[in-house]
Amino acid sequence: MSTPLPWQQPITAPSDSHRQAALHRQTQLTKPAGSLGRLESLAVQLAGLQATDQPQAEQVSMAVFAADHGVCEEGVSAFPQVVTGQMIANFVTGGAAISVMAEQLNADLEVINLGTVAPPPISDGVIDEQIAPGTRNLARQAAMSDTQLQAALAAGDRAAQRAAERNAHLFIGGEMGIGNTTSATALTCALLDEDAAVLAGPGTGLTPEGVSHKIDVITQALVRHGKQSDPLAALASLGGFEIAALAGAFIGCAVRGIPVLVDGFIVSTAALAACRLRPELRDWLLFAHQSQEPGHQRLLQALDANPLLDLSLRLGEGSGAAVAVPLLRSACALHNRMATFADASVSNQNG
Amino acid sequence: MSTPLPWQQPITAPSDSHRQAALHRQTQLTKPAGSLGRLESLAVQLAGLQATDQPQAEQVSMAVFAADHGVCEEGVSAFPQVVTGQMIANFVTGGAAISVMAEQLNADLEVINLGTVAPPPISDGVIDEQIAPGTRNLARQAAMSDTQLQAALAAGDRAAQRAAERNAHLFIGGEMGIGNTTSATALTCALLDEDAAVLAGPGTGLTPEGVSHKIDVITQALVRHGKQSDPLAALASLGGFEIAALAGAFIGCAVRGIPVLVDGFIVSTAALAACRLRPELRDWLLFAHQSQEPGHQRLLQALDANPLLDLSLRLGEGSGAAVAVPLLRSACALHNRMATFADASVSNQNG
Repeated sequence: MSTPLPWQQPITAPSDSHRQAALHRQTQLTKPAGSLGRLESLAVQLAGLQATDQPQAEQVSMAVFAADHGVCEEGVSAFPQVVTGQMIANFVTGGAAISVMAEQLNADLEVINLGTVAPPPISDGVIDEQIAPGTRNLARQAAMSDTQLQAALAAGDRAAQRAAERNAHLFIGGEMGIGNTTSATALTCALLDEDAAVLAGPGTGLTPEGVSHKIDVITQALVRHGKQSDPLAALASLGGFEIAALAGAFIGCAVRGIPVLVDGFIVSTAALAACRLRPELRDWLLFAHQSQEPGHQRLLQALDANPLLDLSLRLGEGSGAAVAVPLLRSACALHNRMATFADASVSNQNG
Repeated sequence: MSTPLPWQQPITAPSDSHRQAALHRQTQLTKPAGSLGRLESLAVQLAGLQATDQPQAEQVSMAVFAADHGVCEEGVSAFPQVVTGQMIANFVTGGAAISVMAEQLNADLEVINLGTVAPPPISDGVIDEQIAPGTRNLARQAAMSDTQLQAALAAGDRAAQRAAERNAHLFIGGEMGIGNTTSATALTCALLDEDAAVLAGPGTGLTPEGVSHKIDVITQALVRHGKQSDPLAALASLGGFEIAALAGAFIGCAVRGIPVLVDGFIVSTAALAACRLRPELRDWLLFAHQSQEPGHQRLLQALDANPLLDLSLRLGEGSGAAVAVPLLRSACALHNRMATFADASVSNQNG
């Protein structure tokens, strides 16, 4: 018998007894029943996932996975490919959106380089998990080999292991990779049997002509590889190293009992692929926001997800998930610290 | 010439030059243009309101206005009227939702008693602005006299003055008053010329029969008083002391250059009345969330407001506004602290 791969480890179900206890506590707090809406269900969900009476979202571990995409040679992004490496440097020096949010939230931020075309101008503080200088061009060949796919999944699992060692209450995965909405859209089309024209969007800011060209490139890729519904085959043909690593990280978090707050379009693609690999993962995922990228709504629907925020964000990096963290913290604080009717000598409903 | 009343003081327009400078800065930050969506527009709006290059939402002043409602004798609430006073005590002892949120946000919380039927069991820490032990029954007579209305508006203005003395970046007004969705619904019906059946909802948790009775009570009140579109007349006939005080506080904040984050249904009613009195106020209002109370959507539409959150909240106390504060803080942090393309040597779009 061979050793199971990291993403094949067992995933425990959330604790139903803690979920029930949290539901009961919510009815005792000094407020009309149900009046905290989704903040109540968030606290109840986290209590079940963390198997605790005191759910928390204080210790947040964020990991941004960065990699380049061979499909950029088809001209599918508004930004030059050198930006992936430049942004890795911006992440570690604190100037990027996710860096500012990590500081704002007092969260850990890891920056993981899975392979870029141009080396980042700064390597200090970057976790080196380089697989290759970017994927191959998915419009013309498989984006990665099976070995590369397993390496990316394992790199994600190692990030989950580090989050567990930091006793993370919550994990956020982010991504950076010029061209990665093309890869994510192709992957989503394959997994959901959709057409590129339905799901493709402007990404970082394509013109309508640019989107039209992107649709052609994705359509060509789907014809070449077939709309593979097998998640590993689809990831290898159409994915990116950062997307596969996110999938590995999410499964790794669930294996270690860490809830995941899912960001926008690209990250949700990884979540979908990961849930196809391991359906038990779905319980461990919370969804932060509805992205402005048009394919995201379809992805959320496929994942039966109702995100917390709808602020027209489309930045990536995990930034939308970071922005939603205070909602989880508020939900936990209210659940843990509000008085009960009995504590506060307040009369309950109907007198 | 008589001295102008507090709510008649001049309101300055937001700074267009700071707004323009903030808009320009957003285009220079290391992200695709527009990709932070509403967080960008929030930062730009706050920069204009605060007339600064560094908008802030750190110093938050919250004031919860509490008062009782004579209309409770018609049986319009799921909770007994004694709860208003009991909750005042719960606010100052830290067990209520808004108390937990104030601590979570490191915000100032004032609790202002405008008059309850049963005195709160604790008065330490409560600001005493008692006008009468609740309003009169609006279904049968005017809720308050003109003198009482002016007293409530002035009490709100004093809260705005204290917020200004604390150099508040942002003001949140909350409310507590058993029966106050009936008052707020009646007031909204009058100001918007709507029927009670369109706007009335379950409040703290009425049954469908309870809602039906509430509609009858409000309809009776609107017949008695007429659907008065004059905001002062409508407030006196149908309002509550806490609703009038909120209106006074919001105008007082705008007069002193403090942006206001508006909570849910009751508070939005006060905002509508205040904007009818002083249309220049509208620029100073940000809207936190879409409440589950059905009349709120119509109110937001009348105020041309697009709230930040939609989490099925319907608690009151200012809690929904408190939950939205971190979004403003994130918007400001991103605006103030992200690197520009030039700072970070990152290539720009189509670069």
